[in-house]
Amino acid sequence: MSMSKVCKFGGSSLADANQYRKIKAIIESDPNRNIVVVSAAGKRFSDDHKITDLLYLCHAHLTYGVPCSDILNTVRDRYCQIRDELGLQCDIEGEFAKLEARLNKNFSVDELVSRGEYFSGLLMAEYLGFAFLDAAKCVFFTMDGQVDLERTYAAIRGASALGRGLVIPGFYGSLPNGKVKVMSRGGSDISGALAAAAVGASVYENWTDVSGILMADPRIVKNPNAIPRVTYQELRELAFMGASVLHEESIQPVKDANIPLNIRNTNAPQDPGTMILSHFEENAEESDRFITGIAGRRDFSVITIHKRNIAAHVDVLRRALKIFDTYKVSIEQISMGLDSFSLICASASFAEFQFDILSDLNRDCKMDGDVDITEGLSLIASVGRKMSSRPGTSAKLFTALGDNHINIRTIFQSSDEISILVGVENKDFEEAIRVLYQEFVG
Amino acid sequence: MSMSKVCKFGGSSLADANQYRKIKAIIESDPNRNIVVVSAAGKRFSDDHKITDLLYLCHAHLTYGVPCSDILNTVRDRYCQIRDELGLQCDIEGEFAKLEARLNKNFSVDELVSRGEYFSGLLMAEYLGFAFLDAAKCVFFTMDGQVDLERTYAAIRGASALGRGLVIPGFYGSLPNGKVKVMSRGGSDISGALAAAAVGASVYENWTDVSGILMADPRIVKNPNAIPRVTYQELRELAFMGASVLHEESIQPVKDANIPLNIRNTNAPQDPGTMILSHFEENAEESDRFITGIAGRRDFSVITIHKRNIAAHVDVLRRALKIFDTYKVSIEQISMGLDSFSLICASASFAEFQFDILSDLNRDCKMDGDVDITEGLSLIASVGRKMSSRPGTSAKLFTALGDNHINIRTIFQSSDEISILVGVENKDFEEAIRVLYQEFVG
Repeated sequence: MSMSKVCKFGGSSLADANQYRKIKAIIESDPNRNIVVVSAAGKRFSDDHKITDLLYLCHAHLTYGVPCSDILNTVRDRYCQIRDELGLQCDIEGEFAKLEARLNKNFSVDELVSRGEYFSGLLMAEYLGFAFLDAAKCVFFTMDGQVDLERTYAAIRGASALGRGLVIPGFYGSLPNGKVKVMSRGGSDISGALAAAAVGASVYENWTDVSGILMADPRIVKNPNAIPRVTYQELRELAFMGASVLHEESIQPVKDANIPLNIRNTNAPQDPGTMILSHFEENAEESDRFITGIAGRRDFSVITIHKRNIAAHVDVLRRALKIFDTYKVSIEQISMGLDSFSLICASASFAEFQFDILSDLNRDCKMDGDVDITEGLSLIASVGRKMSSRPGTSAKLFTALGDNHINIRTIFQSSDEISILVGVENKDFEEAIRVLYQEFVG
Repeated sequence: MSMSKVCKFGGSSLADANQYRKIKAIIESDPNRNIVVVSAAGKRFSDDHKITDLLYLCHAHLTYGVPCSDILNTVRDRYCQIRDELGLQCDIEGEFAKLEARLNKNFSVDELVSRGEYFSGLLMAEYLGFAFLDAAKCVFFTMDGQVDLERTYAAIRGASALGRGLVIPGFYGSLPNGKVKVMSRGGSDISGALAAAAVGASVYENWTDVSGILMADPRIVKNPNAIPRVTYQELRELAFMGASVLHEESIQPVKDANIPLNIRNTNAPQDPGTMILSHFEENAEESDRFITGIAGRRDFSVITIHKRNIAAHVDVLRRALKIFDTYKVSIEQISMGLDSFSLICASASFAEFQFDILSDLNRDCKMDGDVDITEGLSLIASVGRKMSSRPGTSAKLFTALGDNHINIRTIFQSSDEISILVGVENKDFEEAIRVLYQEFVG
């Protein structure tokens, strides 16, 4: 493992010259921060446009044969403004003129939208005094669209071996025929993860505009704490239950290489952010922390099918699962009673095929009595890797909900033992999350 | 509904003359107790023999051509002793002589073992001054062994219309060809239930040697309270989880007729016992009672199958269920995680086919990684019809277990919402039941 720290900065961190200054301070405060991956410029204020959105719009204009110079000029001017404010030399106008000359109806959408990262990279490299490494020359795809890890890692390693700091634009790479291709999901996050894995970085720092992954949705809980340390498995549970975190795919390279991933805040670099790893040694200072985070989703339906002595008639359950599978309705949980079982699935996905499913159930399953459907269930996951070894966790959880008169409709402890799922009525959803947060975090 | 109370007495209530006196006092204390159903004489002390067991032994002697006079005399002497102590006239010796004369290798086992109830009935009828109604003349089976409810109800109604109290031997009836047939399960309990349903009794009193159904296993909890009121559904949950209660089949006639079933103690007739009904109106005095009873079973295995994003691959779960079904291994519960699911089944039943099941799983399910098997799980059900409307129940339950350092391995709230199932390690089984009893009952 090298000493390198790979730092990826998101769009809001590159929105204007002032943000560039913050990045420079961050990079210069630690000489190991020698590989920087950048996004396109993001919004400077809430009504502002993201550069990438504008470039997609340009492409739509081209497709319909409508001139797009105005929009392209807006993009160019954003970058020129940053350059001028920072006193840089980069010939943005010349680059844009060359680009505009090549534009036509068949211009590659991938190449066009990748220019946001490209120009961010050019400016940042000059500003930091680092070498600019075009992603088209170091991130390679195979013809079926998968990242060619071997070639990519070799190219990035080769460039970093020259000993100078590197700036690499995120979000794109090139196909074997040399054409630019953008990433389908995760954008620049995956570029940063590839760079970190390539050089065997000591840490992959993912700089954004919040001080880490939050323990609960800030729209529900006021000023929730950031999670200090989280495993990939916990992150997956939280993401599945609705928490907005990194795309799993995008962090696979660092996960595979067991490189710590640190979510940091460009606007508050003193905050330690969230550290993500596959496994943590127990840490004394966190030992009284019961849970890692809380996440939840609304609008599930509970479909209850009655069959006397169901344990002896599992074929009915099997047939029911087959029917749900046929209509591609995912089953989140299964709850068994003596004479019934319940399938829990997202209401929207069930509602689409409700009548087909009920008709198939009546045809294929020898049920006792009618199918019961209850809507309006919310599922809330309390996630924590230390939960299974803490006898008190479920007690605290249920006491808190009970004391606040929130009725628990269903309970599941996941088979991987890192989360407890409670089902409450939709009307209690936000209150339940607030109560759990208060109980576990305070 | 008539005013009749149908009273069924179990074997221990008919073990000796003193027990007969208790029965007489019970019957005479309430003139509505006018139909009595009796079992064969049970044990008087722990090493004593049940009359029915002795009669089965007689039949085995006949089958192998070994004389059985000694055993038959033991049976006869038990009944003669009761008769003599109570000063009754019944010609027990003459009846036994006639029976013995008919015995041979092909004598019907059903008729022979039914004589225990027959003689109990003869003696009890004389002692109470009631009419003796031979079950062969009022409980009828169809040729396929099912009770012929229409004929049975008509015969019992006809006899009771004569206005005298009735004593009916339990446990047997007759086939359309007149031959005696005994009941396969539930014994005299079903005879009593049939009589109660026939006359539309106001209550079916089932007299035994405990003051009702106990809230927990008395081998684990010292002197547990009796359950005052329980629904059939709760009873089913408790029975399924190991509580020793009435056979469900045996109480179907009174359940169908919505006749209250009252479990009483012949040795403590002042105790109200347990009242069983399909549904109870809320009762102020019980309103702070959270649960109805606690029951549990040891030795379950948890079979965990890994499959990434299982919600989108329910076919793996379906295939696994099919394999378990093939080997007739009942699934008690299913627990789903994001990347795995667990099937919980009785260890004994799983162990028998473990290698076949694992081999089939490897063949049919595209699993990620190996199957995990954890043994030594106990399941404990806390059952209560009011549980779902009490937000505090699960909190109390988990707090009690947590405070006593009992680690909860799995949690299930049944889909019928009348029980919460917790999985603990076998070593914590008894302690967990005691803790829950202490918490909920005190």
